[in-house]
Amino acid sequence: MFHKAIKVIVVTEKFLQDRVCSLMESCGGKGYTLVSAGGKGLHHLHATDDKASVAEGLGNIKIEVIVRERSKAETIAATIMKDVFSEYPGIIYLEHVEIWREERF
Amino acid sequence: MFHKAIKVIVVTEKFLQDRVCSLMESCGGKGYTLVSAGGKGLHHLHATDDKASVAEGLGNIKIEVIVRERSKAETIAATIMKDVFSEYPGIIYLEHVEIWREERF
Amino acid sequence: MFHKAIKVIVVTEKFLQDRVCSLMESCGGKGYTLVSAGGKGLHHLHATDDKASVAEGLGNIKIEVIVRERSKAETIAATIMKDVFSEYPGIIYLEHVEIWREERF
Repeated sequence: MFHKAIKVIVVTEKFLQDRVCSLMESCGGKGYTLVSAGGKGLHHLHATDDKASVAEGLGNIKIEVIVRERSKAETIAATIMKDVFSEYPGIIYLEHVEIWREERF
Repeated sequence: MFHKAIKVIVVTEKFLQDRVCSLMESCGGKGYTLVSAGGKGLHHLHATDDKASVAEGLGNIKIEVIVRERSKAETIAATIMKDVFSEYPGIIYLEHVEIWREERF
Repeated sequence: MFHKAIKVIVVTEKFLQDRVCSLMESCGGKGYTLVSAGGKGLHHLHATDDKASVAEGLGNIKIEVIVRERSKAETIAATIMKDVFSEYPGIIYLEHVEIWREERF
């Protein structure tokens, strides 16, 4: 029923949303989920901020894509790291998930 | 201190929120977390959309429930798949988590 | 390329955001992500609510911090459990993730 898959999670500034989503799709991701987010810290976006704010349309964005193959997840991550995070702040991490209807991912 | 558990994650259209949450509860889920979301893609909601939008009260919803038993997680997923996603778009997936105060889940 | 790490997830009432984030940082967390959330249920915030609402600035908050060492994750969880959730409602759970650029976490 369920099949192992990998979720790639990106947290970055909202103005980079379209760029990150396009890279996910060009690397073979078949869809993504977007959630407005705030954040703070060294491994995050605004290391020099005194105070984090929960983004309300203007802040950060959490973008998630699930793919079946780990190799595809790593390609997505490497591409975003090179094309976006060499210039802009953000984090990328992976989570192991189990999906239903694997043909959709 | 921590105990293994399963998180069931549903991403679907916001108008289905009450229906999905009711099914989670009727299958034994003791609580859930709701987050407004947007999305795009084949494994997602609006496969024909040109552009995804971050939902602001009108879009998609991410609903998460944590349960202790995998069998309960699978029942929740199977019920929502049958009762909701045979008719409406959405995805369901599982994540392995570790919980504290297991009697609450 | 990727390194194993632990994500600590807290879901609680929004007015506790600063307190939880400060504890995460004082326990060694180098950053966190914030997402507005709603919720319902015994393992959640408002066990007596008839209906959950998606928080829009006034409700609940989901706070995530990723750390490299499990011992640090457990310290963060234990500290929040003792200092916050002995008095206020909320949940804490862990997820296993894989991070890039581990020196940032």
